[in-house]
Formats: sequence, C-alpha cells, structure tokens
Amino acid sequence: PAKPKSRRQRWEVKASEMAKNTLNPIRAIVDGMKLTPNPDKPMIALSIGDPTVFGNLPTDGAVLQALKDAIDSEKYNGYAPSVGYLKSRQAVANFCSCPQAPLEAEDVILTSGCSQAIELAINVLCNPGDNILVPCPGFSLYKTLAVSMGIEVKLYNLLPEKSWEIDLQQMESLIDERTSCVIVTNPSNPCGSVFSKEHLQKILQVASKHCVPILADEIYSDMVFPGCSSPSLASLSSDVPIISCGGLAKRWLVPGWRMGWILIHDRNDIFGSEIRQGLVKLSQRILGACTIIQGALESILNNTPQSFYSNTIDFLKSNSEICFNELSTVPGLNPVMPSGAMYLMVGIDIYHFPDFNNDVDFTERLVTEQSVFCLPASAFEYPNFFRIVVTVPEHLMTEACARIREFCQRYYRPRSRDSTDSHDLDQ
Amino acid sequence: PAKPKSRRQRWEVKASEMAKNTLNPIRAIVDGMKLTPNPDKPMIALSIGDPTVFGNLPTDGAVLQALKDAIDSEKYNGYAPSVGYLKSRQAVANFCSCPQAPLEAEDVILTSGCSQAIELAINVLCNPGDNILVPCPGFSLYKTLAVSMGIEVKLYNLLPEKSWEIDLQQMESLIDERTSCVIVTNPSNPCGSVFSKEHLQKILQVASKHCVPILADEIYSDMVFPGCSSPSLASLSSDVPIISCGGLAKRWLVPGWRMGWILIHDRNDIFGSEIRQGLVKLSQRILGACTIIQGALESILNNTPQSFYSNTIDFLKSNSEICFNELSTVPGLNPVMPSGAMYLMVGIDIYHFPDFNNDVDFTERLVTEQSVFCLPASAFEYPNFFRIVVTVPEHLMTEACARIREFCQRYYRPRSRDSTDSHDLDQ
Ligand SMILES: Cc1ncc(COP(=O)(O)O)c(C=O)c1O
Ligand SMILES: Cc1ncc(COP(=O)(O)O)c(C=O)c1O
Repeated sequence: PAKPKSRRQRWEVKASEMAKNTLNPIRAIVDGMKLTPNPDKPMIALSIGDPTVFGNLPTDGAVLQALKDAIDSEKYNGYAPSVGYLKSRQAVANFCSCPQAPLEAEDVILTSGCSQAIELAINVLCNPGDNILVPCPGFSLYKTLAVSMGIEVKLYNLLPEKSWEIDLQQMESLIDERTSCVIVTNPSNPCGSVFSKEHLQKILQVASKHCVPILADEIYSDMVFPGCSSPSLASLSSDVPIISCGGLAKRWLVPGWRMGWILIHDRNDIFGSEIRQGLVKLSQRILGACTIIQGALESILNNTPQSFYSNTIDFLKSNSEICFNELSTVPGLNPVMPSGAMYLMVGIDIYHFPDFNNDVDFTERLVTEQSVFCLPASAFEYPNFFRIVVTVPEHLMTEACARIREFCQRYYRPRSRDSTDSHDLDQ
Repeated sequence: PAKPKSRRQRWEVKASEMAKNTLNPIRAIVDGMKLTPNPDKPMIALSIGDPTVFGNLPTDGAVLQALKDAIDSEKYNGYAPSVGYLKSRQAVANFCSCPQAPLEAEDVILTSGCSQAIELAINVLCNPGDNILVPCPGFSLYKTLAVSMGIEVKLYNLLPEKSWEIDLQQMESLIDERTSCVIVTNPSNPCGSVFSKEHLQKILQVASKHCVPILADEIYSDMVFPGCSSPSLASLSSDVPIISCGGLAKRWLVPGWRMGWILIHDRNDIFGSEIRQGLVKLSQRILGACTIIQGALESILNNTPQSFYSNTIDFLKSNSEICFNELSTVPGLNPVMPSGAMYLMVGIDIYHFPDFNNDVDFTERLVTEQSVFCLPASAFEYPNFFRIVVTVPEHLMTEACARIREFCQRYYRPRSRDSTDSHDLDQ
C-alpha cells in the first residue's frame, strides 16, 4: 500500500528563491534614501532615465501617426508570431543593416522592450553556474537578471580617465571556462561614453582570443554627438558572434511602448541553429511586443525625419556641455564629458566633503537642501560618482548646476595632500 | 602565483538548458504533421485560438477609440511603474471587484499578456523541485513554463462525461508537501467548459484542506453562454489565497495587444507581503504592458458597450450549437457541448477508425482530404480528442462540419463489441 503522502497541515506560502533573488540595486538604494526636498526650491529630478518626463522631448508626429494608422487598419489586433511579424522584422533588418553586417528578417526577434531582449539573450547563452562579464559602472538590469537566474556576475572596469574605455587587461583576466558572454554597453548608460572603432576592435580581439560571444546592448546606438562616430560592434566583428539588443525606447523617445529587438550577427555560424532556435523557443514563453507597435514599426523606422534624430542629439549635446562646463569649475567635482546617450557621470572628491560618507549621503543631502536629485552611482556599483540625466529642459539644467555649485561650495573643505589619510596610505 | 585559468581554445556556444527545456507541445505536434490541404477545397483552420483571424469578430469601436485617445494625449509614452499605472490598476480593480472579493489597485499588477501574468505567478510561488497541479486536458503554457523552470507538473483529470469537471479525488491524491499551487482554468481552454458554483466550492475545499494556493487562469472569465453563471474562484473563497490571471486578449478580441493582469485575492493575509513584494520585484525584470494600452485601459473597461460582449457570446454559443448538433450525429465522434470560452472538444472513437492510429493521424488526414484543420488534443496531453475553435464565420462552421462528417463516413468502421481488441482487454 502506498505510503500516505506528507502534506501541509497549515498555510505557509513563501515567495520563491528567484523572487527573493531578484534584486534591483536602484530601488534598494533609492528606497533607502530620505528624499525630502527643500520646500523653498522646486524639485529638479536629474535621476530618471526616461526622456519623456519633462515634456520637452516629445516623439515625432510621424511616430504617433504610424501608430494611429496601425490601429485604423485593424490588421494588428490578433496574435503575431512569437518572434514578431515578418514585415516588422524585415523593417528592423533593413534599418539596422550595414554592408559589413548585413541582416535578414530571420536575424531579428522583436521583444517587449530592450529589457526582454537582454533577458532572452542571457537566458539562451547562460546556464546557472556560468558567469558573465558586465561593465562597471553599468546598467543594473544585467546583474538583476543574471543573479536571479543563478549566473555569476563579474565586473570589468571602465576607466573615467580614459573616457570610460574598458580596462581590457582586467577584463581579460576575468574570463574563464564558465564565461558565457561579455556584455558591452555602447553608448553607455550611465557614462554617456561612446567607444572608438579602435577600442571596439580591441574588445573583439579579447572575445575572439577566448572564444566568448558578446551581448551588445546598443539601445543608445546612433545617439552619438556630432563629430563622434559609433560603428556597431557587429560591423567590426569578423568572427565573434554577437547578439545585439536594441529598441525604440531611447532614440524615438517612447520607452513605455516596450518595443525592443534582438539582432543575431553570426556570419561564421558559430551560434548555429541551436542559439537561434533557443531564442525562438524562449520567445514563445510569454510572446513579445504589442502588435499595434509592431504594425507601426516599419513606418516609424522609415518615416521619422532625420531632423528629429539630429534635433534630439543636438539638444543632448548642448545640455551636456552646459552641465559639464558648469560642474568642471566646481571644486570637488569631476564631471566626465559624454559623447552620446543621455547621461553624464560626475566624480565626487569625497575626501573634500568630510560631512558625507559617500555618494549616497551626498546626493541625499543635495535633495534635502537644494531639491536636486542625482542618482548616486553606487546604484551602478560605482561609489563616489553620481549620474546626471541630461534630458531636462535647458533652464532646469542651468538651475540645477547652479544649485549643485552652491551645495558643493558650502561643504567643500580644501585638504592638503599630507593631511589626507587615504593619500598617506597610498604611498 | 595564481593558477592560470582554464579557458576556451575554440568556439563552442551552446544553448542553455532552459532554452532546450522550453518545450511547446503544440509546436512539437503541429510542426511534425504534414499539413497539405486538398487543392480542391479551400482551407478552413479551426485550430487557432485567435478570434481575430477571420475578421468576423472585430473589437468594438470604443476600444479602438480609447487607444487613439491615449496616443493623442501624449501622456503615455514614458515608462510606467513596473506594475502598471496606478489609474489603470485602479480601473482593473473596479472592473473585476465583486462584493465577495473586493479589489484595490494594490491588488493588481499589469502584465504583458495573460501569459506573463501566469509566468509571474508560477515564478513567485514555485521553486525548482516543487510541483504544480495542472488540468488535463489543459492549456499547454503551464507545462512549458514550469518544466523550463525545473518545476514538476502533475496532471489532474477533467472528466468529459461530467462536462469536464475535475476528478477531485484524483486531483487530491496528487497533492504532496512540494505542491506549490493548483492551476484552475475556468472557463476552460481547450474544453469550453464552465464550472458550477458548487464544483468551484469543492475545488476550494481541497485546496483549503491541504493549504495549497490556487492560480486561477480566468482569461475567459465572463465569456459564458447565457443561462450559465460563472462566479470567480475568489468570490467563493473564504481562506484559500488566489492569484487570478486575466487580460484583454479574449473578451475584447485583441490578443496581440499583450495586456494582461494579475489579481491578488488574499483576504486572510496568507500570501502576506512576501508574495506581493515578490511579484513586484519580478515585474521589474522586464516591465510589463505597453503604456498606450495601459493608458487606454480605463476607458476600454468602462466604455465598451454591454452589447459588444453579449453579441460575441451569442455568436460563440450559436456557432457551438451548430457544431455540436452537427457532429453529435456523426458516427464515431463524441462532441462535448461547451458553456463558454471559444472552444469545443470532440472525442474520436478511434477503434472505429482503423485507418488512423490516433488523433494526430486523424486530424492530419482531415487536412489532406477535407482541408479542415482541427488541433489534435494530444497537444493538450489528451489523445483521441480534437479541439475546434468556434470563432469562425457561421457558414465556414457549417461547411467544416459537413466536411468532417463526410470524412468520418468514409473511414468509420462499425465494430461489434466482441471484435474490438481493446475492449476484450478491458474485461
Ligand atoms: C543600457 C540600457 N539597456 C537597456 C535598457 C532597457 O530598455 P527598455 O526600456 O527598452 O527595456 C536601458 C534603459 O534605461 C538601458 O539604459
Ligand atoms: C487558458 C489561457 N490562458 C492564457 C492564455 C494566454 O493569454 P495571452 O494571449 O493574454 O497571453 C490563453 C491564450 O490562448 C489561454 O487560452
């Protein structure tokens, strides 16, 4: 006779390990901060990576019209294939193709935002116990996703003094047998940096030498200031297979629409059908992007006027210069001029600010006193920096910088080299 | 000196275990079938659970207008909170509330389709090694998701002779210490069945006795034929905590829009904050539904005329009756009349069709000869049935049934009880 099963006698419902291990460092840090603005000064939030919050950067009319046309057609209400409509994937392939890295529709998978693209890419490449290489400072989602899946995260360093180029030697030293991919974010959140062609080639050399595929997060691709060029990693790769993740969120200023994509670049057939089929299978779990946005995609990509893109970039560059120029002359701060995306990182000489222990303290008090909120870069595993989002209207950018100056002037303490403990230790 | 790391010398990129373990039984079966229609007869696909494919069931004009208003407002282009806009969650809470199971906005999480709602629910309740109880026949996504996460699936039986009620004793026998939830699909895909209040109460009793929470897949809620009522499980539960999953896909006839939701019903605070917070954390991984649809949601729920819902249901009921009445008189077939949703299951007396081994053979040849495609219920782990989707235009429903009759008449072989091997074995 079957042994009676042991069963529960009372209610005891616990959240899964995965839920518990889904950690969001931005939330963890921001939720722990006391963010009470100074009632005498209106709040200026330079913290949110959403270009739409101030209303000064609307998307283009052609983009909205494309959506309305898609609705009126009544052709896009049913299920799309799990990888997206063929026509829409073809449009992305055409738009993202370049002679060095041609794409076909079958190389494209549409996803619910770039976030899902990243999730699918990590998911298809990595097993629990593997490790991935992630930039530091870097976008926190990589770690959030990887840790929840039991994948180890190894941080490679970006060097502020070299415009946030990768410390390639240190990166290489992290690679081992269980390294299943290197994530490269270019242009970068949080740095606003853009890698040169030469630097991208060196990254590819490391990946090629150790046979590690690259997950290229290129959600800010083409958001590059005039005078600076940004080839895609895939256009420079001769052998390294690349999963490139992108989407409409940033360049078209519609992050809420959740339209992302995966581009599979694998001219040497190293991924083979296994990775491609794996991605297709994973796309069937919850299906991807909203069909109305998918239906509008071809028109969005083909009909958005060039002036829309360049106006956005000109604005971001101009705001970045205002911010950089202003903060460069503030004692105790070291802003790093960006070349793209929509962010600017500022180093804090924390030993000149003895009132604060770290970037979290510093930015918290900046809210309390000056009603300016910048994200402490501890959220990107990079203490004693903070990140400024440069999408705010110009007058608020100027005002915010003036307030930051006032704040720093109040708390800055000149310290001679000798009196600085940490520097004594350096010697 | 550090031991040199062992690294890869050549390319060898493999898809992850999770990608390999993401199995889609519908695809597995359908992709293995030779589906070549008879060139003399136009194809009628009764296989796809997408009510929009024939164009005879458009969504309501008010639904489309709500979307266009959301676009024109230009208020819904930025990121929403990961759980959805408060206003939209409030709208869902109001719409889905009933006096016995009231809901607040904080009980609602918006998701990318009901599929993501189901994924989040399984993800928050289950650890690898746990098991879940899933209906048989049942919607295949539960197993696809669970198996890929290392969760065991135990099938409980639905009884066709009792209008697909659950075999409660058998279901109860499956519960053990590692059972982390029971999934109940009501109304049912693939059966089109609707549980009575009494049956739902008995399900709750089993769950309550063994302290197992319920995942109620109620994506077809209120898609119930006149004369039949369908309370939600939550409205009948006094203690069992319930995660109910729903969305716009079916009732509003817009499955491509990927708007789903989770409703947390937990009046006895058994889930507590752990499950709620777990769901919030999981929602931050890839964010949820498209903001344009979220922005339209309140208006969709409040302004869709009652006549739209009832017209849809009247049509589904009428088509179901046509199909049921027609196939009831076909020797060798045993259709089960549905009470809701948009499906009808038909049993095949396979020993009367010696030309075919099983439902897959049978439905494959039905395509080849009659150009009618019905999904073999092996895709729902229920061999020797097939599923008919009753959303096709009436004349195609009639025509399809006539062709099925012709097909069966051709292959039906009357067999005396004695000559049937399988029956001899039964004795
Ligand atoms: C580097 C990077 N990758 C991915 C994303 C996510 O993009 P999406 O909103 O399309 O999911 C962001 C958003 O801020 C980002 O900064
Ligand atoms: C029972 C059931 N649950 C969930 C879903 C998925 O719904 P959605 O398309 O909103 O993800 C379906 C779709 O057919 C279904 O039949």
